[in-house]
Amino acid sequence: MKLIQDVISGSQRALAKVLTLVENEDAAVPDILDQLYMHTGNARLIGITGPPGSGKSTLMGQVINQIRSSGLSVGILAVDPSSPFSGGAILGDRLRMADIIDDSGVFIRSLGTRGSLGGLSNAVYDCAKVMDASGKEVIIIETVGAGQSEVDIVKIADTTLVVCVPGLGDEIQMIKAGILEIGDIFVVNKADKPDADMVANDLAMMVNLRKNSYDSQWHPIVRQTSTRTGTGIAGLWDDLEKHWSFLTRSGELARRRKLRIEAEIIRIAKHRLLEGAMDSILKSGTWASWVDSASHHKTSPYRVAEKLMECIRRDP
Amino acid sequence: MKLIQDVISGSQRALAKVLTLVENEDAAVPDILDQLYMHTGNARLIGITGPPGSGKSTLMGQVINQIRSSGLSVGILAVDPSSPFSGGAILGDRLRMADIIDDSGVFIRSLGTRGSLGGLSNAVYDCAKVMDASGKEVIIIETVGAGQSEVDIVKIADTTLVVCVPGLGDEIQMIKAGILEIGDIFVVNKADKPDADMVANDLAMMVNLRKNSYDSQWHPIVRQTSTRTGTGIAGLWDDLEKHWSFLTRSGELARRRKLRIEAEIIRIAKHRLLEGAMDSILKSGTWASWVDSASHHKTSPYRVAEKLMECIRRDP
Repeated sequence: MKLIQDVISGSQRALAKVLTLVENEDAAVPDILDQLYMHTGNARLIGITGPPGSGKSTLMGQVINQIRSSGLSVGILAVDPSSPFSGGAILGDRLRMADIIDDSGVFIRSLGTRGSLGGLSNAVYDCAKVMDASGKEVIIIETVGAGQSEVDIVKIADTTLVVCVPGLGDEIQMIKAGILEIGDIFVVNKADKPDADMVANDLAMMVNLRKNSYDSQWHPIVRQTSTRTGTGIAGLWDDLEKHWSFLTRSGELARRRKLRIEAEIIRIAKHRLLEGAMDSILKSGTWASWVDSASHHKTSPYRVAEKLMECIRRDP
Repeated sequence: MKLIQDVISGSQRALAKVLTLVENEDAAVPDILDQLYMHTGNARLIGITGPPGSGKSTLMGQVINQIRSSGLSVGILAVDPSSPFSGGAILGDRLRMADIIDDSGVFIRSLGTRGSLGGLSNAVYDCAKVMDASGKEVIIIETVGAGQSEVDIVKIADTTLVVCVPGLGDEIQMIKAGILEIGDIFVVNKADKPDADMVANDLAMMVNLRKNSYDSQWHPIVRQTSTRTGTGIAGLWDDLEKHWSFLTRSGELARRRKLRIEAEIIRIAKHRLLEGAMDSILKSGTWASWVDSASHHKTSPYRVAEKLMECIRRDP
């Protein structure tokens, strides 16, 4: 297929086309991804998350400049609807992003947050693989907030960067649920603000309390940055490089990617198994009658699920 | 099974026990839920979500007092780790909650936010069904934030209440992603603060722009409340009653619940299908060799998924 060859040889236009197919869940997507798969695995995936107002887009803009200076190509997947990368920004932000947007070594794609969360994190993962196959060397996945949904999306990343700022009141609270456990690098942005030291100290303390087998090898970094003064930006890219070299050296990268592949195989199998059987029981009206009797509490969803499983097993 | 009988006859102790089994994903759970299912469908499920600091716990406390005054029993499922209902509150909050906690017509359960999001929303749904079977007439599901994860959890509810407050800066932004589409009632809490009117007007405008077939029958309510002065609290309970009566009258309740049952049947079937096959291929080492060759890009997750599907179909 010419489109696939074009993606692999780095055509931005082909890349954009395939990303759209992925987002629209086009029927051709599984086959395309299957063929692109052999060309993936080279990019490093960086996930960045933080509450709205933490300035993570501006921060990423400055880090991307650093990455570009080191000669690496960049793909950006923005899942944050308010991100300037998604076009949802105020004019000032867009202007600040202009030099990035005009750089042909940077490819930006925003993904809607419609549909189920599961669907979204699958789409993000698939889009990252397409960017990877097209030769992007660093892929940045930007999500808003710090809830459980972001945890799911960020799990795709090799390196997870959590951004918070002093003065949001509840900054520590907001990153409590799950994110603290998965951050590799924590950034206290707007370090020129009062309380930045306190927030950084609180974070360092919480990270110290965190205990998992991975932490015996990598101690999460807490770094202060200011996009206004430029403080800490070069250092942040150093941190990212340091984590990447740790991942490749220690075998942690292989371990993380293996877990991702396992989850993906299971997801694909589940989805496809159902597809065939559902088609025929939907057409025959069987499904409607099952749902109806469960709705009227004549049977339970558990018993209907058993019947559905029988159909799937009979399905060739 | 005596435990099941005890839940149905309203024993709080049996209820607590079964909720723990559900949370721990005990092997007995599917069978228990299957048997309890015939006794569910009577409770109304109210989902409440909003950013941290919006005062939704205090608000719910006051609404619960209203519900109790009307003689209905209440079950609370708190998914917010910072909720006073989950014990994560500052002392002042706990004191304010004391009269609710001591009321035997109110049953409170908090659910951890560990594990996958999918797992969490399933647990919430299952716990709500157990509470329903035990005779709780109103079940309140409280989640923090307003991201996509909360959308998934709130989808379980019959009525969805979205709380926001003036002065958080980005209040409208924060409820953008998905929540605006699913709210039945919007509450601007802390109505005594400046800008409350503005936030309420913005919300009303955005709700007006929202268009779906459901909206032609129910126009979402935007209400201002103040837990400090008590403004709007009685009215909020009236709104909830109004929405409930709309749901039952219009057939919308039956429609929503049918969709939930369909999703549940599919989820159970997917889960069980995989269980059996995974067991044997994990033991035989087949799974490890598959994952290994996908990890080394010798095959793709799509091809491995095909093999897994064959195993599942062969599995009796």
